[in-house]
Amino acid sequence: MANLRIPGPTPIPDDVRAALSTQMINHRGPEFAALLERVTEGLRPFFRTESDILIYTCSGTGVLEAAIVNTLSPGDKVLAISIGSFGDRFGAIAETYGAEVERLNIEWGGAAEPDAVRDALRGGDYQAVLVTHNETSTGVENPLRAIAQVVRAESKALLLVDAVSSMGCVPIETDNWGIDVIVTGSQKGWEVPPGLAMAAVGPRGWEAFKRAKMPRFYLDFGKHKDFADKGQPPWTPALPVMFGLDVSLKRMADEGPGAIFDRHAAAAANIRGQMRKLGLELFADERYASNTVTAVKVPTGVDGKALTAKMRTDYDTVIAGGQGKLAGQIFRFGHLGWFEQQELDDAVDALRKTLVDLGYRIPAGASA
Amino acid sequence: MANLRIPGPTPIPDDVRAALSTQMINHRGPEFAALLERVTEGLRPFFRTESDILIYTCSGTGVLEAAIVNTLSPGDKVLAISIGSFGDRFGAIAETYGAEVERLNIEWGGAAEPDAVRDALRGGDYQAVLVTHNETSTGVENPLRAIAQVVRAESKALLLVDAVSSMGCVPIETDNWGIDVIVTGSQKGWEVPPGLAMAAVGPRGWEAFKRAKMPRFYLDFGKHKDFADKGQPPWTPALPVMFGLDVSLKRMADEGPGAIFDRHAAAAANIRGQMRKLGLELFADERYASNTVTAVKVPTGVDGKALTAKMRTDYDTVIAGGQGKLAGQIFRFGHLGWFEQQELDDAVDALRKTLVDLGYRIPAGASA
Repeated sequence: MANLRIPGPTPIPDDVRAALSTQMINHRGPEFAALLERVTEGLRPFFRTESDILIYTCSGTGVLEAAIVNTLSPGDKVLAISIGSFGDRFGAIAETYGAEVERLNIEWGGAAEPDAVRDALRGGDYQAVLVTHNETSTGVENPLRAIAQVVRAESKALLLVDAVSSMGCVPIETDNWGIDVIVTGSQKGWEVPPGLAMAAVGPRGWEAFKRAKMPRFYLDFGKHKDFADKGQPPWTPALPVMFGLDVSLKRMADEGPGAIFDRHAAAAANIRGQMRKLGLELFADERYASNTVTAVKVPTGVDGKALTAKMRTDYDTVIAGGQGKLAGQIFRFGHLGWFEQQELDDAVDALRKTLVDLGYRIPAGASA
Repeated sequence: MANLRIPGPTPIPDDVRAALSTQMINHRGPEFAALLERVTEGLRPFFRTESDILIYTCSGTGVLEAAIVNTLSPGDKVLAISIGSFGDRFGAIAETYGAEVERLNIEWGGAAEPDAVRDALRGGDYQAVLVTHNETSTGVENPLRAIAQVVRAESKALLLVDAVSSMGCVPIETDNWGIDVIVTGSQKGWEVPPGLAMAAVGPRGWEAFKRAKMPRFYLDFGKHKDFADKGQPPWTPALPVMFGLDVSLKRMADEGPGAIFDRHAAAAANIRGQMRKLGLELFADERYASNTVTAVKVPTGVDGKALTAKMRTDYDTVIAGGQGKLAGQIFRFGHLGWFEQQELDDAVDALRKTLVDLGYRIPAGASA
């Protein structure tokens, strides 16, 4: 089995994998109702919300769309804060459905500083602010708490948050920080495969839902809530991932949110240190470097695409390349969800060997 | 393990269940590209199309929405043929996105006769006709081939077909019958869990896509095709179900489409016969009785909700009740995907015992 070190899907622990094979049940019967209740309550300590957590069968992009189409109307003014390709996507979805989107584009590698957000908010009377918590394409974690504080202090805008690759891995206080809608995907921090995504909707999110005129059916918040209230999904859900999540959330409760957050922070710090020892440069502004994915500049003279390909074929280690305009220029390590330090060390070792194979000279003083 | 006899999710064979536990892979790597190619080609002998088959992470309802939003514009005139609750849903989705929907509503239990469709088409210049092939809520299979013939002969309308609970179980000739878009869901005929859904898009479907102005992002045909052409999904897919489908499609190829269709037809005929022997009345017009789900009227004097509950608690057999306005009035047996005759016989036996427990008298001459 390859050492899979991309920023999701992540490797799955054996007990969770076994649960994926559970025989099918009636998704409208009492067993499912109990499962839905357990999973929803298991998510709550990571979402830190007393409001509704809705479970979708789709990818992270699907719940980004859900956040928009359930709270906005065509013509609404929206501030889309983007620090990378997923931030661009969030704004593009709003545009697709007819929102009037103003963009606060931060140079890739950087974060959205609260002051920049404050300035942008002063420019217009926005119905919503879209923000990516952890930008998977650049390895940057936005200072969400501070951004939320500014949005709440300076505007009446809804705050819609993409926490696809951060929730479950780093502390988020949905209610305390005043977040209206926040979404995540199963294949990132949750130690299960892709197939499910989750959206928490706070009181202001539900008020917006009542007014929102963008069309939706499959992704409708109301249909998800009405059925969840009777222990059912609105549509037939990805049951294997539900069965897996039932086990992974027990694992995560046993480890404890604090210990999980510490593990992610420690692994990220370790990886950043190891990259420096190899003489490599991080892509992200280090003040905002992500605790779930580390983006590294491909060193001069090395072909970035050859690097990821060779690591896979010669060292059975799978890392991610750069997306869009960063293709070939960076590579990315995932260190989120279920992992052990040894797997990360092995991946770094594979990287070192591959770099040497490709003619890169590790600077004097770097670890051998 | 309960005897699960609802019209999807269906029980999953052991080798497919084992495949669900496959460790994660990079969904943008060469392993996934090969998997996508195998699965797409494995679906083709059942779709009977040379055109694109797109794979979605969503339920059947999600691909119904995809069929509409990718081919139509707000204001388009649409004929929604409905013979039950899924037909109603197909029309409701079109209305949600601003289509001008005329309905051909057939009394539940009946099918849409080609003459009725011909008459309805003469009433207006429709951009699309929506039709459910197999109506899961009433146990009726529409005469799709004849309906398609009429639509093609009498109009220039696109033909969008819900084959969620028929594809893979009964013969469908997507290209030969002139179907423009046809969709199905993984948890019905495909011997795998829910989580994926598929849409085939023919040449006229793609032409319509170019003009269609309904908004979409997650469900976009074009994004699915562009990525599929390079061996990738547009968004992170429900990998366990993909792994399962890889195995189940090999099973289905081994059994052979013809043998699978015969098995479904024989099981359905058998179940209908057994219901008659118990003195029970079928809900569906027998000329159009479904080969994948059989709906039966709850006999006078028996509480329909007590019937399904008691079968579950006392005989560990799970059948479906009626949906919407049929709640308590009918019950439904699923006989689709992977099943063996013994499981159906056991379920009929459990039904017989439950009916007796509830005071029903099996008429003289019925089997004991």
